[in-house]
Amino acid sequence: MSSEPAKAPPTPEAGVPAATVSNKQRKRDARKAEKAAKYAHAQQKPAAENPSPEHEQQPAAAEDDPSAANYGDVLPGEILPAAVPDEPWAEIGHLDKAAAGRSVLVRATAEAVYRGSKTKNVAFLKLRQVLSTVQCVLAGSAQMMLFALSLPKESIVVVEGAVALLDEPLSYTTVQEVEIKVRKLYCISRADPKLPISVEDAGRSAAEFAKAEAKGVPLPRVGQETRLDYRVIDVRTPTGQAIFRVQHQVENKFREYLSARDFIGIHTPKLISGSSEGGAAVFKLEYKNGKSACLAQSPQLHKQMAICGGFRRVFEVGHVFRAEDSNTHRHLCEFVGLDAEMEIMRHYFEVCDIVDGLFIEIFRHLNENCKRELEAINRQYPFEPLKYLERTLRLSYEEGIQMLKEAGTEIEPMADLNTEAEKKLGQLVREKYDTEFFILYRYPLAARPFYTMPCYENPAYSNSFDVFLRGEEIISGAQRIHEPKLLAKRAAEHGIGMSSIKSYIDSFSYGTPPHGGFGVGLERVVMLFCGLHNVRLASLFPRDPQRLSP
Amino acid sequence: MSSEPAKAPPTPEAGVPAATVSNKQRKRDARKAEKAAKYAHAQQKPAAENPSPEHEQQPAAAEDDPSAANYGDVLPGEILPAAVPDEPWAEIGHLDKAAAGRSVLVRATAEAVYRGSKTKNVAFLKLRQVLSTVQCVLAGSAQMMLFALSLPKESIVVVEGAVALLDEPLSYTTVQEVEIKVRKLYCISRADPKLPISVEDAGRSAAEFAKAEAKGVPLPRVGQETRLDYRVIDVRTPTGQAIFRVQHQVENKFREYLSARDFIGIHTPKLISGSSEGGAAVFKLEYKNGKSACLAQSPQLHKQMAICGGFRRVFEVGHVFRAEDSNTHRHLCEFVGLDAEMEIMRHYFEVCDIVDGLFIEIFRHLNENCKRELEAINRQYPFEPLKYLERTLRLSYEEGIQMLKEAGTEIEPMADLNTEAEKKLGQLVREKYDTEFFILYRYPLAARPFYTMPCYENPAYSNSFDVFLRGEEIISGAQRIHEPKLLAKRAAEHGIGMSSIKSYIDSFSYGTPPHGGFGVGLERVVMLFCGLHNVRLASLFPRDPQRLSP
Repeated sequence: MSSEPAKAPPTPEAGVPAATVSNKQRKRDARKAEKAAKYAHAQQKPAAENPSPEHEQQPAAAEDDPSAANYGDVLPGEILPAAVPDEPWAEIGHLDKAAAGRSVLVRATAEAVYRGSKTKNVAFLKLRQVLSTVQCVLAGSAQMMLFALSLPKESIVVVEGAVALLDEPLSYTTVQEVEIKVRKLYCISRADPKLPISVEDAGRSAAEFAKAEAKGVPLPRVGQETRLDYRVIDVRTPTGQAIFRVQHQVENKFREYLSARDFIGIHTPKLISGSSEGGAAVFKLEYKNGKSACLAQSPQLHKQMAICGGFRRVFEVGHVFRAEDSNTHRHLCEFVGLDAEMEIMRHYFEVCDIVDGLFIEIFRHLNENCKRELEAINRQYPFEPLKYLERTLRLSYEEGIQMLKEAGTEIEPMADLNTEAEKKLGQLVREKYDTEFFILYRYPLAARPFYTMPCYENPAYSNSFDVFLRGEEIISGAQRIHEPKLLAKRAAEHGIGMSSIKSYIDSFSYGTPPHGGFGVGLERVVMLFCGLHNVRLASLFPRDPQRLSP
Repeated sequence: MSSEPAKAPPTPEAGVPAATVSNKQRKRDARKAEKAAKYAHAQQKPAAENPSPEHEQQPAAAEDDPSAANYGDVLPGEILPAAVPDEPWAEIGHLDKAAAGRSVLVRATAEAVYRGSKTKNVAFLKLRQVLSTVQCVLAGSAQMMLFALSLPKESIVVVEGAVALLDEPLSYTTVQEVEIKVRKLYCISRADPKLPISVEDAGRSAAEFAKAEAKGVPLPRVGQETRLDYRVIDVRTPTGQAIFRVQHQVENKFREYLSARDFIGIHTPKLISGSSEGGAAVFKLEYKNGKSACLAQSPQLHKQMAICGGFRRVFEVGHVFRAEDSNTHRHLCEFVGLDAEMEIMRHYFEVCDIVDGLFIEIFRHLNENCKRELEAINRQYPFEPLKYLERTLRLSYEEGIQMLKEAGTEIEPMADLNTEAEKKLGQLVREKYDTEFFILYRYPLAARPFYTMPCYENPAYSNSFDVFLRGEEIISGAQRIHEPKLLAKRAAEHGIGMSSIKSYIDSFSYGTPPHGGFGVGLERVVMLFCGLHNVRLASLFPRDPQRLSP
């Protein structure tokens, strides 16, 4: 569409005073606006700090302006000025050639405001809604122009105007074939003219930095901590908006896929009397009546108790808390766990089958339905689409070890893989099987939590599996011990006191089907599917050992 | 269907040794089994404690039994005995007349095991899956009979057999027209013969207690605390199973309805540096590096910050924590919040519109798609279907006060309603408007949290609302203050220190659209829709000031 030759200039709309601007000039101005958008930040001075000459020559008060009712700030406490017509709201993302000639009413964020370079009485606004942007052109009274040019970036504005075809498609907005000729412009929420970070800066790619540097106009960089300190601005970038829309889809698909297979969603307590996974990485607090509580490190014990309670197949989407001192790209102190637990009828591979079908469905859904979001992320943080097979590859732990051995990486056969070995194995599997998503099953029992079912024929191994995505472990699953005596024995061997897990272990003496399940971190799924370099990008307000705000 | 006259006895299946039992005798036995099911507990002795004569005359070892391969316990570590055929699993809920004559393989809970009264070599098993039960009849070798009769209630068993039409429909099982003639019977998980509570006792209605008492055979009652101590048995009752299936549907509909209207699901942190709602009812804990943290009492601050972050419409389903000392039927220390926040374009009634459409859709969905579940709950805890209007009634707070006044209940006009007044108003509204679901809007500002937007034309009131269900406040919503100076002023007036909410207040100076939202407790929706008397029934593992386990 955007390669189509420019059409004749649009018919001027009643009340749109744009006739004075020649077509050629408008093209030049649009190009200027694009250029300005690209390099405005090289100057590092927000518009309001850098007033135009007109700012110095204060214009007459609005009352003296016959078009005074067509612009202005909203009154305190008002949601919308009374002068705004009672018409439906248009979505920027829906504006296309078919909309040309229509009157529209839009509320959006003013991402940028520019003065026309040649034609001084023309101003350009770039408006944004989520991933969509549109150019607005304003040619009103001097006072209205000043009002427009006074708007700080990121202010919320209402624009009423006519959609007009452009001669040449724009490239600095997502709506490329039309613009809005502004008749009315109101400011609903005026942003501070000195924002701590700019959306533009926060959204740049490595390629943009490199290009600007090559041109000798280096661009300001927003460091990770600053970015997270001002997260509410940071997530306004296309990448920020896209990541959380992808995350929403992952969760929706997780729930849909499992609900369609007779799983029911449950909620287990996060305040528990003992630690759920053992170990020291647990947040403790004073509960009521002198009791002390832990924050659940996983819903493990209670999701198993739900199976014992007769629910057959359950899942939970909920917060999990880890008081670990891990300052890595993949650890958080609080994240969203996607957990499932189900009866096993014959073999724990039934759990692998669910994981397999579920994730292939999630990947397919994202690739088909989140194209725009994935492109937005890709623009800032380039990544290759995930390689995966329609039927997920399953390798035994011994096969994995053997592959590593043959490639020269010697692994202690009865211990867990370290991060480096996992990465290496991911690489070997990709080379050999052309997939970045695979299941490694039958781990040594010693490498798994106390509740993991040992292999029937060789208890040095276990009915367990991990799943790898782009060389990182992402899902952990297993059959669980449902025999209370064996479970108590294994807990004791792990040094876990009976007192804190008594009701859990006792549950299994009331008649419990064989069962198993898996758990995965929502943020990690998003991070690894999108090839992001840090899990914090996939957490709206991340928590790590250093960070407890905003 | 069940009134259809009994058909000729089914063709005996190969291997089903049922030919010796006359049709008449089988009818008598089935009736006996029903009676036994009803009054077994009056004896208060589990089957295994009350051995039949055959138990004393120990039978020959299974090896001497030619049918030894047809029954037995699973080996330790095995999921299923090798002798079980590799056939698909049948669901009890799907067994009907059309299944008659078919071979089926079922894994289920043995809810009860009875000996045939006249025909000593016949045993009956009542098997359960979720809300469905079926009668199984077994007539094998003496050893197989003993094995069956040795099974403690609530054991998990596998049955292989033939579906057979019954002459007369049963009333003590949900599958009424057919039974399973058992060929093979294995125990997968043997329950403790002395269960702390029985599923039967936990599932009785007030009517059953009254009837049994009238007959002079009072039934054992399970008190609330005992019930919650052994929650994994308690939730196996039809009511327990039904409640959490209803809850699952409420959450699914909440997400679906909002997702279809461009809301995206987010997750906000539960570990925060200040309290989210002020007040003392907050759990505090040591975070990392000497920081102290609070558990979020609501996602209020962060869901607003998500709006500030450009997400336009968001919802969250997540845990909220209240350290309140409220020992009431409707308070929990931890519950699941259903929260939404959205841009407001013209009026805060847009938020009411979403609440209205959403809940009417949830109610419709539950009534149409959870009939069986609602019936199950109704059997134990009878309730009237909720009365609601297709377009939800909206009354102003002043109108509500006036209604109460006219009915003789005088209310301080600028304070909040107390629980008693809310109940009374619910009753008046039901009488006048024939609805138990309505919105009360425009509350006095003094009765609302600091972040509530005052009314533009009269700041003694606020752009807020509560929603009532069966006379209890269930949803709270409002437009929020998005002007940082006013917000800081209101926080100060509420005695809330700026330090703990600085990043929240600062957010609004980066350009923020007018917005509002609402919050509701998932457990309360289920409780009130189903007319339950206690919110603990709608929480899988409830937490209150006294209870932190299981």
